[in-house]
Amino acid sequence: MGEFDLIDRYFKKPVRRADVGIGDDCALLSAAPGHQLAISTDMLVEGRHFLSTVNPQHLGHKALAVNLSDLAACGARPKAFLLSLALPRVDPAWLQSFSEGLFQLADLHACELVGGDTTQGPLNICITVLGDVPHGQALLRSGARAGDDLYVSGTLGDARLALEAFRGHISLPESVFADTRARMETPTPRVQLGMALRGIASAAADISDGLLGDLGHILKASGVGAAIDLPTAETLLACRATWHCPSELAHTCILSGGDDYELVFTAPTHAREQVLAASVQSQTPVTRIGTIRAAPGIDVLDEQGQALRRRFTSFDHFAAP
Amino acid sequence: MGEFDLIDRYFKKPVRRADVGIGDDCALLSAAPGHQLAISTDMLVEGRHFLSTVNPQHLGHKALAVNLSDLAACGARPKAFLLSLALPRVDPAWLQSFSEGLFQLADLHACELVGGDTTQGPLNICITVLGDVPHGQALLRSGARAGDDLYVSGTLGDARLALEAFRGHISLPESVFADTRARMETPTPRVQLGMALRGIASAAADISDGLLGDLGHILKASGVGAAIDLPTAETLLACRATWHCPSELAHTCILSGGDDYELVFTAPTHAREQVLAASVQSQTPVTRIGTIRAAPGIDVLDEQGQALRRRFTSFDHFAAP
Repeated sequence: MGEFDLIDRYFKKPVRRADVGIGDDCALLSAAPGHQLAISTDMLVEGRHFLSTVNPQHLGHKALAVNLSDLAACGARPKAFLLSLALPRVDPAWLQSFSEGLFQLADLHACELVGGDTTQGPLNICITVLGDVPHGQALLRSGARAGDDLYVSGTLGDARLALEAFRGHISLPESVFADTRARMETPTPRVQLGMALRGIASAAADISDGLLGDLGHILKASGVGAAIDLPTAETLLACRATWHCPSELAHTCILSGGDDYELVFTAPTHAREQVLAASVQSQTPVTRIGTIRAAPGIDVLDEQGQALRRRFTSFDHFAAP
Repeated sequence: MGEFDLIDRYFKKPVRRADVGIGDDCALLSAAPGHQLAISTDMLVEGRHFLSTVNPQHLGHKALAVNLSDLAACGARPKAFLLSLALPRVDPAWLQSFSEGLFQLADLHACELVGGDTTQGPLNICITVLGDVPHGQALLRSGARAGDDLYVSGTLGDARLALEAFRGHISLPESVFADTRARMETPTPRVQLGMALRGIASAAADISDGLLGDLGHILKASGVGAAIDLPTAETLLACRATWHCPSELAHTCILSGGDDYELVFTAPTHAREQVLAASVQSQTPVTRIGTIRAAPGIDVLDEQGQALRRRFTSFDHFAAP
């Protein structure tokens, strides 16, 4: 099968929202009036972002999900995406399964594939995603203010827990392993929550490298610090980690686990009811886990309100293992 | 050096045209009023698109150039790009040189880096480029009509000639090798010509996989065929190949060489003066090399106007070598 047959068979679909899709030198899009275009890109490499044994359908889901998660973090509505794919060989079964996982999630968000590139090479998946956001309403990292509440969506630590089990560092009951593995392999981008938080959240980011790391981006961009109430985070965000591994590892899963694709965001205290309404409207659980403070840095507070002294590091693709 | 230091040091620049650039979950852009957004993406893999010995500065140039060439093919003005980079290791000298080549070309076209991703992995460069084009004026592949003239910009075959010399299949005088190597490693995207051809050309594509292959895309999309006058193409488009290698190889370089990043385009015969004016305005040579015909397929005609019987195949990333 040649390059163009491959595209025709697995990836070319009629476009509904773009002006021109796959099959020309460029795709053509029109921005909705009064909207800005939000754009983000993520590259996934075998052995680094996924295991070679992963189900290709899950991989197709995840490759798009991590990109949609960036749109969610700025409150944008998904619109279109481009897929670049380096493949060691043409494997029809793999491509069929990968494209199914990809398009299931894409269709769920009415996000259409409008272009891309395929080549031979070590397995590499690079997606660029585009979304619309009403002008001036995008959630940025830079808007957090001292006194704001600090929130996280969904649960944290499951993907890290699955990874620890894969690595043989811990052992999990079969059903727990299946659940955490599903969270690692097919994360849910919080697109509806992101859109519902427009005009409510003061800052937001998605959690891909771990809560502390991604919260750190908000704090740096906003020039503030934060205090996290660890017992709340443990109880509400990370049941599986709390129950199924030693406390130190549980803290690591929650605070610097990575691959969660939840949203961490801030909002003024007077907006608590609005945050709750956004959570209900988007059917996405949200937990208030701390406070933004003027002093820089992150304090992780124990049950007595004392700052833990242990340092948690976030994921860095170029750090020594 | 960590992932974020790397981005700060080599790739983060203040944005001038985008609303939000590097450093948030998404970049934010506003489309110019009355314009469509043109988007394209290309992935470059070591050993497939470039040799491991390539000068990183040239590689930075080429990675963006092949993307800008897609914008040129649809007549769009470059606006912004995103860079995803998988690197085996952090090599400051390589990154410095790569980013210099990248930004030199980006600055030349006022195209700014607004986002991206970096990770560890086998060397892979994936760029997504965005441009503006007045609504309805994009050059598409589907507009060629029987009777139209067929044109190619610049010269063809130099990159293939350099590759043949690298492979030891031919030997070239030193200065010729240097010139063809420069054409292979630092191609010139025909951005100005593409914009000048808006409203004049009936169809266009860029030549990345070879003239016959990329012309084939236009013909398929337009439902027409073409005749190419080979002696004209030989004389005007491919001096170096004609002079420096056997005639059969010269024909291959011209017709299916690949990596030229010239434009192939069609225009009605009444627009010849306008095509010439676009060529002058954009300071880009343009050669009329044939005619669009109603009958499908491509005839390559010799001096007597007879169709050559030899088959030329275009480049396919998944074809057997």
